Amino acid sequence: MKTVPGGVCAAKGFLAAGIHCGIRKNRSKKDLALIVSETAASAAAVYTTNLVKGAPLIVTKEHLKNGTARAVVCNSGNANTCNADGREIAEAMSELTAAAVGIDPGDVVVASTGVIGQPLDIAPIAAGIGPLAAALSKDGCPDACEAIMTTDVQPKEIAVEFTLGGKTCRLGGIAKGSGMIHPNMATMLVFLTTDTAVSPAMLRRALSTDVQSTFNMISVDGDTSTNDMVVILANGLAGNPEITEEGEDFAAFMAALNTVTVWLCRAIAADGEGATKLLECSVAGAADLASARTVAKSVVCSSLTKAAMFGEDANWGRVLCAIGYSGADVDVNKVGVSFRSAAGEVEVCRNGAGVPFSEEEAAKVLHEKEICILVRLGDGDAAATAWGCDLTYEYVKINGDYRT
Amino acid sequence: MKTVPGGVCAAKGFLAAGIHCGIRKNRSKKDLALIVSETAASAAAVYTTNLVKGAPLIVTKEHLKNGTARAVVCNSGNANTCNADGREIAEAMSELTAAAVGIDPGDVVVASTGVIGQPLDIAPIAAGIGPLAAALSKDGCPDACEAIMTTDVQPKEIAVEFTLGGKTCRLGGIAKGSGMIHPNMATMLVFLTTDTAVSPAMLRRALSTDVQSTFNMISVDGDTSTNDMVVILANGLAGNPEITEEGEDFAAFMAALNTVTVWLCRAIAADGEGATKLLECSVAGAADLASARTVAKSVVCSSLTKAAMFGEDANWGRVLCAIGYSGADVDVNKVGVSFRSAAGEVEVCRNGAGVPFSEEEAAKVLHEKEICILVRLGDGDAAATAWGCDLTYEYVKINGDYRT
Repeated sequence: MKTVPGGVCAAKGFLAAGIHCGIRKNRSKKDLALIVSETAASAAAVYTTNLVKGAPLIVTKEHLKNGTARAVVCNSGNANTCNADGREIAEAMSELTAAAVGIDPGDVVVASTGVIGQPLDIAPIAAGIGPLAAALSKDGCPDACEAIMTTDVQPKEIAVEFTLGGKTCRLGGIAKGSGMIHPNMATMLVFLTTDTAVSPAMLRRALSTDVQSTFNMISVDGDTSTNDMVVILANGLAGNPEITEEGEDFAAFMAALNTVTVWLCRAIAADGEGATKLLECSVAGAADLASARTVAKSVVCSSLTKAAMFGEDANWGRVLCAIGYSGADVDVNKVGVSFRSAAGEVEVCRNGAGVPFSEEEAAKVLHEKEICILVRLGDGDAAATAWGCDLTYEYVKINGDYRT
Repeated sequence: MKTVPGGVCAAKGFLAAGIHCGIRKNRSKKDLALIVSETAASAAAVYTTNLVKGAPLIVTKEHLKNGTARAVVCNSGNANTCNADGREIAEAMSELTAAAVGIDPGDVVVASTGVIGQPLDIAPIAAGIGPLAAALSKDGCPDACEAIMTTDVQPKEIAVEFTLGGKTCRLGGIAKGSGMIHPNMATMLVFLTTDTAVSPAMLRRALSTDVQSTFNMISVDGDTSTNDMVVILANGLAGNPEITEEGEDFAAFMAALNTVTVWLCRAIAADGEGATKLLECSVAGAADLASARTVAKSVVCSSLTKAAMFGEDANWGRVLCAIGYSGADVDVNKVGVSFRSAAGEVEVCRNGAGVPFSEEEAAKVLHEKEICILVRLGDGDAAATAWGCDLTYEYVKINGDYRT
């Protein structure tokens, strides 16, 4: 498997575009994205578990019932959530897109991201959809990627190439993350495309399995969004024998999918609102997978641990504290903790109690941009990893004045 | 019922003191507190549910098995948690205190608060306990209150007076809060004293019932401490007929207790690390009490809502979002939200969707120091209130560099 350029356009038959249509006042920021498969594609998606769901998710869920789709349309600047006319607007977005691209409205995935509870004006979308469709190209991924960003600083796109049944397959994706990131059974907006031939049922299985260890394991601020969605389209143009059951090909496809999703998870966490550091918590020795995941996520969610990492302070007591209140059944007298980065590794806690360590060495380790918190439990063999970011002044600044 | 001065010394027979003994380097900050009842007292306590428990809690729990105690000793600057010799040190603190006061070590409540995982040196406590006991007085509450503070800005003390069986009773308390505040079945350090005659069993029942709607409903940062503890001593010197069962007297006692604990809860939340505003979330119309509490706590815990309140931004979509992911079974299409403060009340959401409101009016409401977020559910008759604070630059600053 190797990384290739092109993002969501890397796979055969996928085109993308992004423009400024006028939802945002700032004309230099694109706000409408389109991804289209030239042929029919299997499609699968996972959605937020928040009871308050964006109207686009409800419409998309209906459209994906038959397991196929051809296009993804997504605006930023407005979440189209908690609006009385939300569903009507999301359906209008589908219809406008279908007409512009020449497909059925039921083959359109609709997504929106931005502020909640402000009516979304359909006029700029109606005016922009024609030019957007006309701009579709194999080079359109960076524009589409920019158009779905909100407070993201970095665009997030990646693609990989792999082989199935002698055929070269590609799988790529784009994501927006930043704030309100604490996915549960889904995540922020992530759009994945592949030319692999895979049945809708196996595509659903692949995606729903993968998100458990990837997007569900990241948190920026503990707030589970109302609009989280991960969508994958697979148009089969690679010509591989269609994947219709578990086996070697499915495993290879899962590996490619996981490479892309883990990369996007790390990119989303590293680009969390106001973040200066990517935090990774790797838990080993847990009694079971659920405990490992619970502990890892509790550590990356702890405000106190996040603030300590921002301050580059090896305050491991906060890690122990987060393990203790996680809800996982852990023998706290067997817990060990180390901090690791490109600058080295320093052990700070063994058997639930502190061990002497060099503060100088620890400061060097924590000065890096990617910090791994290694947690060793003494309860079994299960392991899990979670991703997050530090808590900074900038997070407060961004969110103290987001709407105005 | 009326408020009276004196805090934990307001009730008959209670003395207190606080000194700097040397646990903290800063000589101007007191770090060792003592509260003593001149006679035997019923005692009850609730503790953190964090699996990682401070050594003092384990020792205190043993001492309170018989339902009586005479003294509370508490140091700040070091939590005596995750230390190999923690228990030994906590027991030494009990013995030193018992010897200085002339009581049994089993009648001492031990508490510690501060950084986790750094050995606590017993030497300054051994040297300071004599002078501390000598300083005990009816005017000692402010000193004791200061000695248990960590990053608290405001001392928190209160007392009330009420009548039982024709006798005047008093109940007072002190608290420390600030950071790592997300109690579960207990809270930060809270010491309550009363001269009411009440049996250990009824005292336990009163305390464990009260904390469900008070200390368990506050959150500063979502981190449940390892050292949370609420203790109450009742020495019976008021001379009222001893409360040994439910009834009118028990109800009157519970009302006094609740007045003191709600006051302390609001004081802890308002003085949360870096806080500029007290947030109160009042939920009405919930299907049951558990749902009401879950929703109220989810709102005051939401980082995004907390940051919006700091920015005085009426971003009610974040409130809806927090309700939606709370885990409570809520009909989101019936939710209503208003913001209220001394400056007025503004309705922002009805039936799950936004209603037009004056941004100017909302800004005026949110500019106040105490903000109430009113949530109306359409699911039933249950109600609950939770307390928290805004998320500020100062929180990040305090916690980015706490240990060093």
